[in-house]
Amino acid sequence: MNGTLYLIPVTLGEESNSVEVLPSGTLSILRNLKEFIVENEKSARAFLKSAGTTIAMPDLILHPIGKHISPVQMNSYLNNAKKGAVIGLLSEAGCPGVADPGAQIVSMAHKGGIKVIPLVGPSSLLLALMASGMNGQDFHFHGYIPIDKTARFDFLKHIERETKKYGTTHFFIETPFRNNHMLEDLLKALDNGTKLCIACDINLPKEFIRTSTIGDWKINAAPDLHKRPAVFLIGK
Amino acid sequence: MNGTLYLIPVTLGEESNSVEVLPSGTLSILRNLKEFIVENEKSARAFLKSAGTTIAMPDLILHPIGKHISPVQMNSYLNNAKKGAVIGLLSEAGCPGVADPGAQIVSMAHKGGIKVIPLVGPSSLLLALMASGMNGQDFHFHGYIPIDKTARFDFLKHIERETKKYGTTHFFIETPFRNNHMLEDLLKALDNGTKLCIACDINLPKEFIRTSTIGDWKINAAPDLHKRPAVFLIGK
Repeated sequence: MNGTLYLIPVTLGEESNSVEVLPSGTLSILRNLKEFIVENEKSARAFLKSAGTTIAMPDLILHPIGKHISPVQMNSYLNNAKKGAVIGLLSEAGCPGVADPGAQIVSMAHKGGIKVIPLVGPSSLLLALMASGMNGQDFHFHGYIPIDKTARFDFLKHIERETKKYGTTHFFIETPFRNNHMLEDLLKALDNGTKLCIACDINLPKEFIRTSTIGDWKINAAPDLHKRPAVFLIGK
Repeated sequence: MNGTLYLIPVTLGEESNSVEVLPSGTLSILRNLKEFIVENEKSARAFLKSAGTTIAMPDLILHPIGKHISPVQMNSYLNNAKKGAVIGLLSEAGCPGVADPGAQIVSMAHKGGIKVIPLVGPSSLLLALMASGMNGQDFHFHGYIPIDKTARFDFLKHIERETKKYGTTHFFIETPFRNNHMLEDLLKALDNGTKLCIACDINLPKEFIRTSTIGDWKINAAPDLHKRPAVFLIGK
C-alpha cells in the first residue's frame, strides 16, 4: 500500500505567525506528521515548533534536500512513503515547488505511485499576482531573469512587447540584496506607459504593494527595497 | 484619508469548510468587514455565513461585479474605500483576480490610492502547480485555450515545443462539462513522452491529482472528469 506526501506551505518570514497564516486544516495535518523532507533542517524545526507540532523534537525525522544531494538519495527519502507512511514536504518559505525546491521530490512521488496532496497556505507569488490588479487570466512567471546587462535589457524589452501584444502578466524575482538595482534597470529599460507592480515584504508587517506606470515610478519613487523580498510584475 | 481593499480567497467548492481552509488571520479580518465587492451576491452571502461573519446579514453591503457592469459603476463601488472605509473583494471560488474576476477592481484601487492587501487562502491553480511536480521556476498560465479544433491543436503543439525548449510549465483550464473532450484532445495532440498533470476537484473530498506521460495516460486512463473542476498542466 502506497503512502501520502503532503505539500506544506510555510510562512513568508520570521515575523509572520504560522498559526494566523496557515488554515486549521493545514495545521492539524502537519502537527501530526513525524517525517518530513525539508529544504533546511534548522529552519524546518523552528517552523514546526511555531506551528505547534505534537511530535517531540528528537522524534522528528527530517531529510534535508540541500544543494548537493543526488537523485538516488533524494528518491530514498520517499522509501517510507512507498511502504505506506504519510510524510510532509516543507520549503524555507512559501509553497514547496513554486519558486522553491521540491518539484523533483513531487515528481518522484508521482512516479512511485505515492498520493500527493497540496495544502493551503501562503505563496508570495500568488499574493503578489492577486494584489497587482494585472491580468490573472494569462500570466508567466520567470523566476530569476538574466543578470548580464545586455541579456537583461533584451529580456525586459521582450516581455514588454509580449505584454503589449497578448496582455500577459510577466513576473519575476531577484536576490533581495540586488532589488534596488533591479528597479533601476526596470526604469531604464521599459517605456513610461508600461505598468510595473512592486510587491515587497508580502504578508509581513512592512508589506508594500503598488502598481503604477514606469513614468509614475520615476516621479513617485519606491521605498528602499534593499534586502526586502520582492516580486516584480509587468503587465496591463 | 484613503481606505483599504482586502482581497479574500474563498473555498474551492461547497464541500469545503471555510473554517478549515482559511487561516485565522484571514477569517478574523473578513468576519469584521461590512462592505464587499463580490462576483455573485447569493454565493457571497452563503460564504460569509459559513465563514462566521459577525455582521448581521441585512447590514452587509454587497456590490456585485456581474458581467454587464460599466467601468464607471465598478469604480463607484470604491467610493467608500476612497473616503477611508475598509472593504473586501470576493470571487466565487479561489482568489480574486487569478483566473477569476476582480483584477479590474484592484487596478482601480491602485489608481485611487487605496491600500491593497491580499489575504492567504486556497487557489486551485497554485495547489495544482505545487502538486504537479513540474517546473515551478518558470510557468505560464493560459486561462481557457482555443476551442476551435485546428487552433487548439496548433496551440497545444506550440506549448509542447516551448516546454521541450525552455522547460516552462504550461497550464490551463476548461469549462468543466468539456473536460473529457479536453483530455481526448490532449491525448491526440501531444507526444507520448510529454508529461501531463491532471488536477481535479482540488481541496475537495474527491481530489484527484496525477502526473504521467501522455503514453501512460493512454494506458492507465484518467477517471471521468465530467463537470469536475480541473487544471491541466503540461511540463517537464
